[in-house]
Amino acid sequence: MALIVQKYGGTSVGTPDRIRNAASRILATQREGNSVVAVVSAMSGVTDNLIKLSRAVSDQPTEREMDVLLATGEQTTIALTAMAINALGGRAISLTGAQAGILTDGIHTKAKIANITPRQIRKYLNDGIIVIVAGFQGQTIQGTITTLGRGGSDLTAIAIAASLKAHNCEIYTDVDGVYTCDPRIVPSARKIDVIAYDELLEMASSGSKVMQSRSVEFAKKFNVPFEVRSSFNQNRGTIVKAENPSLEKVVVRGVSIERNQAKVTITNVPDTPGTASRIFTALAEAGVIIDVIVQNVSVSGTTDISFTLNQDELDKLSGMLDAVVKEVGAASITKQGGIAKLSVVGIGMRTHSGVAATLFEALGKGGINIQMISTSEIKIAVIIDEAKIAQAANLAHEAFGLASDAAV
Amino acid sequence: MALIVQKYGGTSVGTPDRIRNAASRILATQREGNSVVAVVSAMSGVTDNLIKLSRAVSDQPTEREMDVLLATGEQTTIALTAMAINALGGRAISLTGAQAGILTDGIHTKAKIANITPRQIRKYLNDGIIVIVAGFQGQTIQGTITTLGRGGSDLTAIAIAASLKAHNCEIYTDVDGVYTCDPRIVPSARKIDVIAYDELLEMASSGSKVMQSRSVEFAKKFNVPFEVRSSFNQNRGTIVKAENPSLEKVVVRGVSIERNQAKVTITNVPDTPGTASRIFTALAEAGVIIDVIVQNVSVSGTTDISFTLNQDELDKLSGMLDAVVKEVGAASITKQGGIAKLSVVGIGMRTHSGVAATLFEALGKGGINIQMISTSEIKIAVIIDEAKIAQAANLAHEAFGLASDAAV
Repeated sequence: MALIVQKYGGTSVGTPDRIRNAASRILATQREGNSVVAVVSAMSGVTDNLIKLSRAVSDQPTEREMDVLLATGEQTTIALTAMAINALGGRAISLTGAQAGILTDGIHTKAKIANITPRQIRKYLNDGIIVIVAGFQGQTIQGTITTLGRGGSDLTAIAIAASLKAHNCEIYTDVDGVYTCDPRIVPSARKIDVIAYDELLEMASSGSKVMQSRSVEFAKKFNVPFEVRSSFNQNRGTIVKAENPSLEKVVVRGVSIERNQAKVTITNVPDTPGTASRIFTALAEAGVIIDVIVQNVSVSGTTDISFTLNQDELDKLSGMLDAVVKEVGAASITKQGGIAKLSVVGIGMRTHSGVAATLFEALGKGGINIQMISTSEIKIAVIIDEAKIAQAANLAHEAFGLASDAAV
Repeated sequence: MALIVQKYGGTSVGTPDRIRNAASRILATQREGNSVVAVVSAMSGVTDNLIKLSRAVSDQPTEREMDVLLATGEQTTIALTAMAINALGGRAISLTGAQAGILTDGIHTKAKIANITPRQIRKYLNDGIIVIVAGFQGQTIQGTITTLGRGGSDLTAIAIAASLKAHNCEIYTDVDGVYTCDPRIVPSARKIDVIAYDELLEMASSGSKVMQSRSVEFAKKFNVPFEVRSSFNQNRGTIVKAENPSLEKVVVRGVSIERNQAKVTITNVPDTPGTASRIFTALAEAGVIIDVIVQNVSVSGTTDISFTLNQDELDKLSGMLDAVVKEVGAASITKQGGIAKLSVVGIGMRTHSGVAATLFEALGKGGINIQMISTSEIKIAVIIDEAKIAQAANLAHEAFGLASDAAV
């Protein structure tokens, strides 16, 4: 008998009908001869409504109380899901994060899981009962309710799978899995069957937000393979797991894109130790989230530093950056929106040269100008004009043969 | 420094604005130099919505899960109330029933409080923090969430007041207190300043539903005085406490009425041991809730038995009663709706004769026919035509001088 942990996201339990659908999937999994733990999120929209309520009573709601409030969202879903399974003739019980033994630190609204004691879960599983656990929440050692922040339910599922040494961990969502590129942009994009943790991490950081990086990192750390799949059909999804030789045969796994970017260039920055640090410390203190940073080699004692950020972050720069530029003795700042990032990701590029050349050639043929380049061990990212991003994605997708099955 | 327990019902926390109002009252109470624990209900309407949700996923929701679901209602309110107090510059923290140390038996949806360990509450109070406790809920010794059933939040407040030996327990609701009669029917009705537990119990069982009897009985058992008052104004309410000599000077405390009643008469019932038992056991098994029962002395070996019930309960009788009547050998059944019950209640009538005479005389003068009479130690109830209930209430109210201050 296999032990399976499933996780149903907010859209998968967004209405009573969808809860019944999830319930029947959970029950079917048990009836195939498995022990099942299902982690559920708040019904979609519920968390936003709770946040709205909190704003109606306080401009700056206490974080401890925010956690008490938000935790009701998942608590509602676990009760409804267990009821729905029982109504179908199954036997299910619900557990809050605290009841499930999920111990966290005391950092409210973004707590980290410190430990899981799945004593209660095990007890019920041994009795043949399906256990429905509230995602996204836990409690401190003092018994105070905490929540895990964005993507917290995925984290709950993966952490429970790790602690129970589950055979499978299935993350149900509203997409079929991870694609070689966004199918709305590249019609020939296809679902990836197997992907390595690191590849998914690079794809996620490049705009393919199937899961929060945090959960993937956790799964990687504890080596918990999981499958991302849709709760609305029976298709197999994408299995995410540790690299292995067969995975490495593929040079490029996918192309991910991120629109709505902006770039900022600071010119003639004195090329002295500590200058870059002063700039980026100031940005961090202002809460500006930076993506790609590029600094070229210095010419005649000064250099240009560029970075990209989400266009919505531009406002935060305002006067702050001018002061820093003055302070470090740089010449000027230019800001430019309307750009996008395209990344190609794949573990295989570690051992295969020529990936960059293939990408640049493909873009060049399409007359697409590359404004910035940034690379990691398994990723090459380029910044281009946002208007050309769809064309670029299709060219790159084709250049790496991602549409053809032969590439697998 | 006094320790005050306050309870805010669903209408008193029914909107964000009302939660802010409750928050400012709670904070003001602390700033007058008191330690404050506030017990809150679910926002009005929330519980009904949760019940609706449960019906959408299951025809017969599991009671264990119903408790997990319903407990989210009060959990939402505690978080919002604590936030609102903090936003006003106070210091408040919220506790669920489980966190507050409310231990119950395992009878889901109508659990009984077994024990309260207010360790956490005391700790926070000692630190000068206002404690907001979720009403209506607790947990079993195994850590399963339970709810206390109707009127459960009042019960929570009174039980916490008892366990903390609070100086005052204030039950905030949407009425000003307990009245000598319903002011919509008797315009001269006035608020009662002080009433004994037993009097309130008899008033409650006669239609003056300020509080569930269960909570009043609990307060009586543990001798917890409390005040019922409105959260929407600053008026003093009605203090409910143990009888004492000054209370007993008043002969009649109030007049309560209950409309929409029906009476059933079974004629020529053989006057033999066990016959009444067979009739009322059958009614109980059919889930029919009976109010007044009257049986007169037997004439020639048979008697007539009458009882009243809410008109809405009549349907449950249907064929069931005919079978019983046949079985016991009675002659016939008559059912009559359109009647009402009027009760006069007061501890003083124990030692004062003539209360019945005064009531009957007042009704007689008004030409109101009395169909049934039932008495307890501190109550006289009569069944009359529902069309005359307002007239009867005014006559009784006047006959016992309830409008004049001299009666206090």
